[in-house]
Amino acid sequence: MSIAGRVSTLRRPRDLMEERPPAAWTARIVTLFPEAFPGILGLSLTGKARDQGLWGLDTIDLRPFGLGKHKNVDDTPAGGGAGMVLRADVVGPALDHAALGTPEDRTRWPVVYMSPRGKPFTQAMAQRFAGAEGMTILCGRFEGVDERVLDHYAIEEVSIGDFVLTGGELAAQIVIDATIRLLPGVLGNQASTEEESFSHGLLEHPQYTRPAEWQGRAIPEVLMSGHHGRIEAWRRAQSEEITRTRRPDLWDAHIAKQKKGD
Amino acid sequence: MSIAGRVSTLRRPRDLMEERPPAAWTARIVTLFPEAFPGILGLSLTGKARDQGLWGLDTIDLRPFGLGKHKNVDDTPAGGGAGMVLRADVVGPALDHAALGTPEDRTRWPVVYMSPRGKPFTQAMAQRFAGAEGMTILCGRFEGVDERVLDHYAIEEVSIGDFVLTGGELAAQIVIDATIRLLPGVLGNQASTEEESFSHGLLEHPQYTRPAEWQGRAIPEVLMSGHHGRIEAWRRAQSEEITRTRRPDLWDAHIAKQKKGD
Repeated sequence: MSIAGRVSTLRRPRDLMEERPPAAWTARIVTLFPEAFPGILGLSLTGKARDQGLWGLDTIDLRPFGLGKHKNVDDTPAGGGAGMVLRADVVGPALDHAALGTPEDRTRWPVVYMSPRGKPFTQAMAQRFAGAEGMTILCGRFEGVDERVLDHYAIEEVSIGDFVLTGGELAAQIVIDATIRLLPGVLGNQASTEEESFSHGLLEHPQYTRPAEWQGRAIPEVLMSGHHGRIEAWRRAQSEEITRTRRPDLWDAHIAKQKKGD
Repeated sequence: MSIAGRVSTLRRPRDLMEERPPAAWTARIVTLFPEAFPGILGLSLTGKARDQGLWGLDTIDLRPFGLGKHKNVDDTPAGGGAGMVLRADVVGPALDHAALGTPEDRTRWPVVYMSPRGKPFTQAMAQRFAGAEGMTILCGRFEGVDERVLDHYAIEEVSIGDFVLTGGELAAQIVIDATIRLLPGVLGNQASTEEESFSHGLLEHPQYTRPAEWQGRAIPEVLMSGHHGRIEAWRRAQSEEITRTRRPDLWDAHIAKQKKGD
């Protein structure tokens, strides 16, 4: 079956066939579960931003690229073992299709595979992805994907943490959520992204709001003082203390960065 | 407004009011976006397992606990700053409601808040949660929740990584996905969870499947040898090499554990 023959079974084939990149930052998702998207990303601020055209989503269903009458996408692991592995000759053509109309330069259009073996996803990586024109994300299932696909396409493996998920779809949504909220206009209040955790390499200070007293617990006095300088200093000290006690790894990195002259 | 008066506006109030814990492992989610659940968890293996009653999901909509005519759930941060903070006198009653019929012992029923300031979520934590009878997860939005709620209920803060999300809902789904797949019967093949990444503190070896050659790339010969011992040794060496080069932090922890005589 030719690629052209497959196109008719995919969503929004016209968009994908265009020879220029999409107008807004776009995620292209290669998945066996296109119905899982946009999921939560279609709600709330991210959903509103999508309706406004600030970011886009194309899902590429892996199933039509499957082989034979049953459109098989996987087979047993070479060398034995439990589970199934996604075939290179199925995932490869799907990735070729996803690449149509996207820049070859990976800094402009990263191609990522969600995998616990990948490089840990961080706020800095989200900033890098947000600086691109869009990205392609391959979602694995079962025991993963044939290693030759990752080698052949020089795919960047990204992990959202040291745990195992049923599939890559939730991980992909995490990456997209963290990335698109950094795009201009997606969050109403741009200042908000600058104050939050990790923006300065520290965890965020505690937050309080009305009522002034609840269950016998009062809001810390300094926050009610109206003294901007003291409030800033208190928040900074709290951020440092929380980071130092909860995440010595982040704290050490923060100190090392400061010693280098920030 | 009394709690009893609020119950009628919540989903499945009868289940929540029962004085005994749910029959199967159950996640109770306190969220402003109950429609985001089950999301992806309703598909695939996790969806089938839910249909079979192997795990359950109760969403507690935070909105009906809101105050005044507009059911406000948040207010501006004490001391100033961007964004909004979820009120203690709104989240507290919702958590009280979520606690109905659950064991007070937190080892039997963990109560968790998804937050980038939390303890990193790991496979070991997923195993701990899977060993409980269920758990309650509070999903934040905006600038987070009033710190006094976390203190008052001694809530465990859990982070899925060093990045910032629009809300806690995706993070909660990650925790649930990683946890329920460890429950008996959820995955078809139990062996599968034992071979994968992190089960032995190492990243997983590469996987291959048919065809034997693709794009000029062959499956490594040893995997085609049929020699079980050599295949095991090769996979182990690959796991170690990948962990050592990609995640020196995991590798160091692995070595330290081995030295202790494991």
